[in-house]
Amino acid sequence: MNAQLFRIISRLPPRILHRYYGTALVEPYDGPSVKTAIPGPKSKALLGKLNSLQNAGSVQLFADYDKSQGNYLVDVDGNVLLDIYTQISSVPLGYNHPELLNVFNNEHNLKTLVNRPALGVFPGEDWPNRLQSVLMSVAPKGLPNITTMMCGSCSNENAFKNMFIWYRKTQRGENVPFTAAEQESCMVNAAPGSPDLCILSFKGAFHGRTIGALATTHSKYIHKIDIPSFDWPIASFPQYKYPLEENVRENKAEDDRCLAEVEDLIVTYNKKGKYVAGMIVEPIQSEGGDNEASPEFFQKLQRIGKKHGVGLLIDEVQTGGGPTGKLWAHEHFNLDSSPDIVTFSKKMQLGGYYHSADFKPTQAYRVFNTWMGDPGKLLLLEAILNVIKRDGLLENVTHVGDKLKKGLIQAQNDYPALLNSARGRGTFLAINCQSSELRDDIINRLKTKGIQAGGCGDKAIRFRPALVFQEKHADIFFDKFNQVLKETK
Amino acid sequence: MNAQLFRIISRLPPRILHRYYGTALVEPYDGPSVKTAIPGPKSKALLGKLNSLQNAGSVQLFADYDKSQGNYLVDVDGNVLLDIYTQISSVPLGYNHPELLNVFNNEHNLKTLVNRPALGVFPGEDWPNRLQSVLMSVAPKGLPNITTMMCGSCSNENAFKNMFIWYRKTQRGENVPFTAAEQESCMVNAAPGSPDLCILSFKGAFHGRTIGALATTHSKYIHKIDIPSFDWPIASFPQYKYPLEENVRENKAEDDRCLAEVEDLIVTYNKKGKYVAGMIVEPIQSEGGDNEASPEFFQKLQRIGKKHGVGLLIDEVQTGGGPTGKLWAHEHFNLDSSPDIVTFSKKMQLGGYYHSADFKPTQAYRVFNTWMGDPGKLLLLEAILNVIKRDGLLENVTHVGDKLKKGLIQAQNDYPALLNSARGRGTFLAINCQSSELRDDIINRLKTKGIQAGGCGDKAIRFRPALVFQEKHADIFFDKFNQVLKETK
Repeated sequence: MNAQLFRIISRLPPRILHRYYGTALVEPYDGPSVKTAIPGPKSKALLGKLNSLQNAGSVQLFADYDKSQGNYLVDVDGNVLLDIYTQISSVPLGYNHPELLNVFNNEHNLKTLVNRPALGVFPGEDWPNRLQSVLMSVAPKGLPNITTMMCGSCSNENAFKNMFIWYRKTQRGENVPFTAAEQESCMVNAAPGSPDLCILSFKGAFHGRTIGALATTHSKYIHKIDIPSFDWPIASFPQYKYPLEENVRENKAEDDRCLAEVEDLIVTYNKKGKYVAGMIVEPIQSEGGDNEASPEFFQKLQRIGKKHGVGLLIDEVQTGGGPTGKLWAHEHFNLDSSPDIVTFSKKMQLGGYYHSADFKPTQAYRVFNTWMGDPGKLLLLEAILNVIKRDGLLENVTHVGDKLKKGLIQAQNDYPALLNSARGRGTFLAINCQSSELRDDIINRLKTKGIQAGGCGDKAIRFRPALVFQEKHADIFFDKFNQVLKETK
Repeated sequence: MNAQLFRIISRLPPRILHRYYGTALVEPYDGPSVKTAIPGPKSKALLGKLNSLQNAGSVQLFADYDKSQGNYLVDVDGNVLLDIYTQISSVPLGYNHPELLNVFNNEHNLKTLVNRPALGVFPGEDWPNRLQSVLMSVAPKGLPNITTMMCGSCSNENAFKNMFIWYRKTQRGENVPFTAAEQESCMVNAAPGSPDLCILSFKGAFHGRTIGALATTHSKYIHKIDIPSFDWPIASFPQYKYPLEENVRENKAEDDRCLAEVEDLIVTYNKKGKYVAGMIVEPIQSEGGDNEASPEFFQKLQRIGKKHGVGLLIDEVQTGGGPTGKLWAHEHFNLDSSPDIVTFSKKMQLGGYYHSADFKPTQAYRVFNTWMGDPGKLLLLEAILNVIKRDGLLENVTHVGDKLKKGLIQAQNDYPALLNSARGRGTFLAINCQSSELRDDIINRLKTKGIQAGGCGDKAIRFRPALVFQEKHADIFFDKFNQVLKETK
C-alpha cells in the first residue's frame, strides 16, 4: 500500500479498519528499502551520545517507532527493514497495531496505566477479573494459579522460590511450623533457614541474568564471567543430528544419554545433601542456539522429576505467546500431566508464571514485591490475545511457518556447504551456518538488503517474526536470503 | 472542593488548570470518609476471587483508581482514605495527577509506549536525549553513567554485577583478557570464572527479593526462609537512641561499633579468599524499621570502603525521588566523594542506577536483558520531574515534613507510654510504638478513621505521603491520630 493511502486509512477506528481490511495487516511498505549503511549517519551520531552514558556496544541502530509499521522496522536514517527478529522476540502484533494504539483511548484504561498500584496490597477493582479473563483464559492446562511479575528473569527467580518453598514443605510436612533455628539462621543466610537446595539446569540454557537466574544460564561466557554463582547441577541438553528423520536412532540415544545424566546428577547432589528442589528447562533452547528436544525427552524428563520429587519449571519466556503455533510450546509435548510451573514474559508484555496449587505458598508475603506486575501491560496483553483469536494468528503462524521451514530446507539443499539443520516449530525456526563467521556475515548482508535478522548460539540464524508475518513477507525474505547465499557461494 | 465542581474543573487542560489553581492540588475530597469496615463487602468479594488465583493474604483492599485523586485513595466500597503510604512509597504526585493523565494524549508518546523496544539493541530516536534530559538532569553529583532496569530488585542485582566486574578488573588489570580457564569454568558456575566474591550488607537491610538481592536483605524471616543464599558478610547497622540530641555520645559509640564490625568483616572475608567486592546500604533502612544513621557514619563507611578497595552502592529505591526533601537522600550526608553506584525505582517509575565511569563494563552484553527499562515509564518520570520543579515540591516536602515531625514529637511527648523515637527527614518519617501489637492496632484504627498508613520493622509506623502532601493533609492526619491515641490511653 502506498504511504499516502496508508496515512488516510490508518486514521480509521480499528473496528472499521478491520471490517474493510479483515485480518490483512495494513502496512505502508511493500517491501524493505535501504538507503544508507546500517547504522547510518543519524544512528551513529545517537550512538555516540548513548555511549557517553553507558556501554552501548550492543546497539545495532536507532529506530523511528512513529514510522515503523506491521512487520517493518524503520530506522532514523529512513531505512525500512523487514523485521524477523522483533525486539528479541517480544513484539507479537508488529509495530503500531491499531488495536494497541486504541487501548489507552479509554479514560478508565488510561487511569489504570497512570495509577500504578502495589498489586499485592491495593489492587484495582478490575484486577482479579482481568487476571481471570486475560491470563487465565490462556493458562496451560492443569495450572490454576498465577503470579505476575515484571520481566522474565524475575519470573524465573521467583518461580525458583516457589519450588524451594514447596520442596521444604514436602520435607518438613504440610502444617509443620518453622523452627526458631530456621527463623534465626535465615536472617544471616545460614542453614537450616537458608538450606543448601539446588535447581537443576541444562548446558546451553538461558533463563535470565539476575544472580539466581544466571546460575541456571549457560549459553555464553560473557553473561557469566566474574559473577559469583551456586554449585548447582547442570545436565547436557540433547544436541540432535539433522535431518531428524534420517537420525532417529542417534537422536534417541542422545535423549537417553542426557536423561541418564539428569537422573545421575539428582542422585549425586541429593546424596551430598544438596537437594535438587526443581529443574528448569526451555521447550526450545533459544539464546543457546535453538536447540530442540523431542516430546519423548520432555515426557521422560518429567517422569524422572516425579520419581525423585523434583519440581518441573518450563521456561516459556521466549517460546510462549504463540510463535510455535500454540500459545505454549510445551503443549506440543503431550506430557503425562501439566508441568508444575510455566514462566512467561516478552510477547506477553509482562512477566509471570502459572503454577499448580501445590506450588502456591501457604503464607502471604513469601513471593512479593512493590509492583508485582503492571496493570497497564495486562491491558495491552488483553488486546493482543483478542487479536490473536479474532485474526486466527496461531493458524497463521502454523501456515506461514510451514512455508518458511520448507524454504529453509530448500535453501540448505541448494547450499549444503553453507547451511544445515533447519529446524523448529511454527515460525519459531532456525538454521545453522557452517561457521560463526559465516553466520555473522549472512546476518550483516541480510541487513544491507533490508532484513533485520538475529543469531543465537554459535552458528544459528533464528527466526522470530511477529505473529502477523504473512506469506508475502516470507517471499520477500527468501528473495533476499537467496541473493545473499548466491553471492556467498 | 465539592465533587461536582471538581468534575468540571478536572476536564480543563493541565496548563489552564495550573494557571488558575497554581500549585494547589485540586482534590474533590475535603477529608477522608469511611462508610464500611475495611476491607468492605465489595473488597471481600474480590479478595475471594483473587485468593482462588494466588495467595492474596497481603491484600488490604481493592481500590477504585478512577475515583482516587491527589492524596486520597478511594476503595471499591466508597471509602475515601487519606493515603500516607502511597503504594509502598511509589506514588510521587498522588493519584490521577492531570500532568500524568496528559502524557499519552500525544501520539508520539503513545507510540513510544506501545512499541516497546529492546533498548539495548534498537532504542528509539528519543532515548539518548531523554536519558540525558530526564534521568541525567537529576543524577547524583559525580555519577555520569546510567543503566535502566525495570524494578528495584533487578537494579540492585545488576549493580552487584557491575561491582563484581569492576572488582575483577581491578584484580586482573585493566586490559588483561579473560583466560580460557575463566571462560570455561564460569559456564559451569565454578571458579576461577565464577569467583567467590561477596557483597557486604547490613542487618535490617532490605534490597529486594530476587535471589542475589535477597542475600543482602535481612529485615524479616518470612522473606528469606527456605531460600538458598550466599555466605556473604553482614554487619550491624546503627540502632540509635532517641531523641538524638540527648544521646550524642551513645549514638557515636554505636556508629563506631558498627563501623569496626564492617572493617573487621572485610578483613576476615578477604583473608579467607572470599573477597568483598562491594557493600550496599540504604540511606535510611526502610522496610527494616526506618533506621537512620548519621552523615558521619556514611562518611566513615565510604572511607573504609576506599581503604579496602570495596565499592559503595547506595540503595535509594525507597528514599530516592524527593521524600527526604532532596532528590537523593545521600545528598544529606556530605560524603567526601560520590558513591560508586546509586540505585533507584518506585517514585522514579522505572528501575535503574547511576554509576561512575570506573563501574561501566568495558565489554558489551555484560549487563543486558531484553527490555532494559521501559520508555513509557521514562515519559511519566519526565512529567513528574517537571511538576516537582514547577511546583517546588522538594520545598513543599521540607516544609510539610517539618510540621509533620514536630507533630510526631508532640505526640510522643503527650503519649510517652505509647510512642517514642520520632525520626526521619522531609516527610520520610517514622515513629515507634511500644510494641508490635500496639503498632498494628494503631494502624488498623487509623484506617477505620480514614487514614491509610503502613508499618515497617517491628514497631514503627512509617510516613510515606506523596510529594504533594500539604499542611492541610497533615492537620487531618493529626486530628485522626490524636483520636486514636486518646482512645488507647
